[in-house]
Amino acid sequence: MSKRINKEFGLTVKKNEDFSEWYSQLVEKAGLADYISAKGFIIVRPYGYAIWELIKDYLDSKFKETGHVNGFLPCLIPEGLLNKEEKHFKGFNPEVFWVTYSGDAPLNERLALRPTSEALLYSIFPKWIASYRDLPLKINFWNTALRAEIKSTKPFIRNSEFLWQEGHTAHVDNDGAKDQVIKILSIYKDFIEKVLLIPTLSGFKSNKEKFVGADYTTTLEGMMPDGKALQLGTSHNLGRNFSKPFEIKFLNRNNTEEYVWQTSWGISWRLIGALIMVHGDDKGLILPPIIAPIQIIIIPIYKDLNQEIVKKYADSLKDKLTALGYRVSVDGRDEFTAGWKYNEWEMKGVPIRINVGQRDIEKNTVEIVRRDNRQKTIIPLTAISKKIGITFQALQSDLYRNALEFLKDRTRVLESIEELKSFLDTGQGGFLVSRWCGREECEVKIKEETGADIRVIPFDIKDIPIQIGEETTRGVPKHCIYCRQEANQIAVFARAY
Amino acid sequence: MSKRINKEFGLTVKKNEDFSEWYSQLVEKAGLADYISAKGFIIVRPYGYAIWELIKDYLDSKFKETGHVNGFLPCLIPEGLLNKEEKHFKGFNPEVFWVTYSGDAPLNERLALRPTSEALLYSIFPKWIASYRDLPLKINFWNTALRAEIKSTKPFIRNSEFLWQEGHTAHVDNDGAKDQVIKILSIYKDFIEKVLLIPTLSGFKSNKEKFVGADYTTTLEGMMPDGKALQLGTSHNLGRNFSKPFEIKFLNRNNTEEYVWQTSWGISWRLIGALIMVHGDDKGLILPPIIAPIQIIIIPIYKDLNQEIVKKYADSLKDKLTALGYRVSVDGRDEFTAGWKYNEWEMKGVPIRINVGQRDIEKNTVEIVRRDNRQKTIIPLTAISKKIGITFQALQSDLYRNALEFLKDRTRVLESIEELKSFLDTGQGGFLVSRWCGREECEVKIKEETGADIRVIPFDIKDIPIQIGEETTRGVPKHCIYCRQEANQIAVFARAY
Repeated sequence: MSKRINKEFGLTVKKNEDFSEWYSQLVEKAGLADYISAKGFIIVRPYGYAIWELIKDYLDSKFKETGHVNGFLPCLIPEGLLNKEEKHFKGFNPEVFWVTYSGDAPLNERLALRPTSEALLYSIFPKWIASYRDLPLKINFWNTALRAEIKSTKPFIRNSEFLWQEGHTAHVDNDGAKDQVIKILSIYKDFIEKVLLIPTLSGFKSNKEKFVGADYTTTLEGMMPDGKALQLGTSHNLGRNFSKPFEIKFLNRNNTEEYVWQTSWGISWRLIGALIMVHGDDKGLILPPIIAPIQIIIIPIYKDLNQEIVKKYADSLKDKLTALGYRVSVDGRDEFTAGWKYNEWEMKGVPIRINVGQRDIEKNTVEIVRRDNRQKTIIPLTAISKKIGITFQALQSDLYRNALEFLKDRTRVLESIEELKSFLDTGQGGFLVSRWCGREECEVKIKEETGADIRVIPFDIKDIPIQIGEETTRGVPKHCIYCRQEANQIAVFARAY
Repeated sequence: MSKRINKEFGLTVKKNEDFSEWYSQLVEKAGLADYISAKGFIIVRPYGYAIWELIKDYLDSKFKETGHVNGFLPCLIPEGLLNKEEKHFKGFNPEVFWVTYSGDAPLNERLALRPTSEALLYSIFPKWIASYRDLPLKINFWNTALRAEIKSTKPFIRNSEFLWQEGHTAHVDNDGAKDQVIKILSIYKDFIEKVLLIPTLSGFKSNKEKFVGADYTTTLEGMMPDGKALQLGTSHNLGRNFSKPFEIKFLNRNNTEEYVWQTSWGISWRLIGALIMVHGDDKGLILPPIIAPIQIIIIPIYKDLNQEIVKKYADSLKDKLTALGYRVSVDGRDEFTAGWKYNEWEMKGVPIRINVGQRDIEKNTVEIVRRDNRQKTIIPLTAISKKIGITFQALQSDLYRNALEFLKDRTRVLESIEELKSFLDTGQGGFLVSRWCGREECEVKIKEETGADIRVIPFDIKDIPIQIGEETTRGVPKHCIYCRQEANQIAVFARAY
């Protein structure tokens, strides 16, 4: 018998009782990833990787539609290059893996395993950019980044190597860079909210939290079921902080040399972690249809007598749905019961299950089961195309609405640092909206005293989806939550992954 | 003006005069890749990477059609794992990059940058495989491998990090593994011969040249224009050489434990190097249509007066050809002359160019130019769909036929080691067919004395495309080319990359 049936199959803890253990079990039992012996590194199994491929294909087509091209960069960066932009390098220093030997021979210069590729790529930009005609230059890389995780690790959320994409652009002026930063953030936001069905807050990072070497960083923050924030995507305006040390110049229309203005931006497989956390339940994963490797699983239910006929019915249904453009499988394995199969495909989060049995053949019907609320509907076969479309729609809007309601419920406007502490100490967590004077001093103190940092300085307070809605702006006290001095800036605080 | 026009644009050497310099210039001037400061590492530019994406998409769909799935593996492998299969590790030892520090902290155990992933992946297989129901397990990874190149490096041919795919399978018996090895080799052969249009010899590697840790290795060898061999793809039967040290067992149908039988196989971006070398000419690259990022380039030819009307004609032609499924661009840049554009797109190897001007609009015609032989044909617009199809066909069969004729021309049956030396010393190189006694002793001596090694022990002598055809078998002397003892084994010798 397979190992899969020898060991306990289902999740042995509930999501709301031991969230961290629930997450680890789900990652393993849904067949997404496994740890290896080196700390913080994971192998992604085919089912997990198929989700990444769908995320990648979707975003890649959006990048290409908007004029970006892909390339390849080595994963090793000579130490000298990393040192060129001093602040940038310092920011990554403690996390960098260093290659010091090849075979038995020590290297002349240490090589860093890519924590991010700005330094390496920008060392070659002067070769690619001569005049304004070569701009904007918009390039993207689907690769991995390596950052040694010394403390706690969590598959897809915090790993020493992770799959991501890093985009890089160069522009003739700051307006071009600013536009690019926002365009990318909206591609990310659209994808995360409409495809992954996870609501986000968008805005700026504080100076302390921004990308090392950026003028400013924009971010999308999601809320996980334990009330912690998870950064889902970032887009940075690098200004001329790299073009000056790396001498990336262009001739403008007046034939004068100028430094280019740059951006960089990225998302990672952390998005897989986010959708596990946000949508999963006590039976396992729940996948949004657009990134589900299998969208519809068909289970033929038969006894020995009618086995052939039921399997045939299931296969023809599969062909029909495949022709409609869905990703469909039939689970025709004889060694498992129907109930066992239900559990397996629920664990794997397949959004729609279709059961077909003798009765369905006689009556020309099928039974459709939604993964999220496990609602069953028996429908005539003739209605299937329409019904599948409606069911996916409903499932998508329910998943998003549930996540949004949770976010609203856990977002609060707070008056004082005492309130912040007592709110976080309930153990519930959440997003805490207040004003902040803008001084790093206060930011550091708040972090020290509460464990919360500034996740985002929202573009627009009205976008924060909290219950009190329009009242929000007026509702936020006009003083810094820490020093009590008058303050203009709205900031959202949270503990975070 | 752009740097592209400031510096000398065309190739300054001829392919048959300085092949190595021609290759380097082409890689750079066609915008395929650039070196970085660390030895042997390259950045692949968008045009080069787009070729890789097409190669990848094509093969990936073939792998998926035949039941393989993709996954992700970390690039770092703990030293202890590599040591488990002793021979395997020794084979890679001198080429391994070692990570010894993270930040300022020395690691407890050194981590190797993946030279290949057998050891890492197989350490997890016991978790995935329990019974015969879990077999065959067929998984593939699109990633990079890292092997320090100490000596000479060449973009796409010999680099310290290279893009590749590595496939791994596990089977219940050796027959399953044997079949798999051959199935993969034929997927590779079909792709290399019918898509990349490069003829190959297929067969076994000698024991000395096989993959470290394999029972045997099968290979595809191509011939480059300098007469050197280039290994284009390999597929290995690993037997139980890894399943024993890594304890990869399964329960068979009789409920008895057995070790699995395994294969691994790969191709790399070396295929890009091969098609540059085999098909390129003194004007630049020539790309086989199926993997050409741009298959058809349209050049509008106009004076100030009719600019708008010609551009419109070009754009509508582009739409028409795009709708037929071709990848088409219009080069409407005003800052370059038509002649300059011809040179640029010839350098980039676009297989078909279409010129459109005032006369074409009046007569409802277009001019089609083939990249390979630069043959021009003026055709009525109504015939374009048919003519494009025919032109691609003709170009494909000509590219393949030319490469095959070259291979035939440079393949010789030889009698003695003296003949071998004098043939190679002409500087022309080629494939040398003879018999070999099977002893490593002779193989080593031949390599020492001539620089040639055994590239392939052909599956079938009749598949070697040499002029003498059916005469071949009888033509090969029945003694070892080195020790002159009676010998059964046919071997093909060559110098190689």
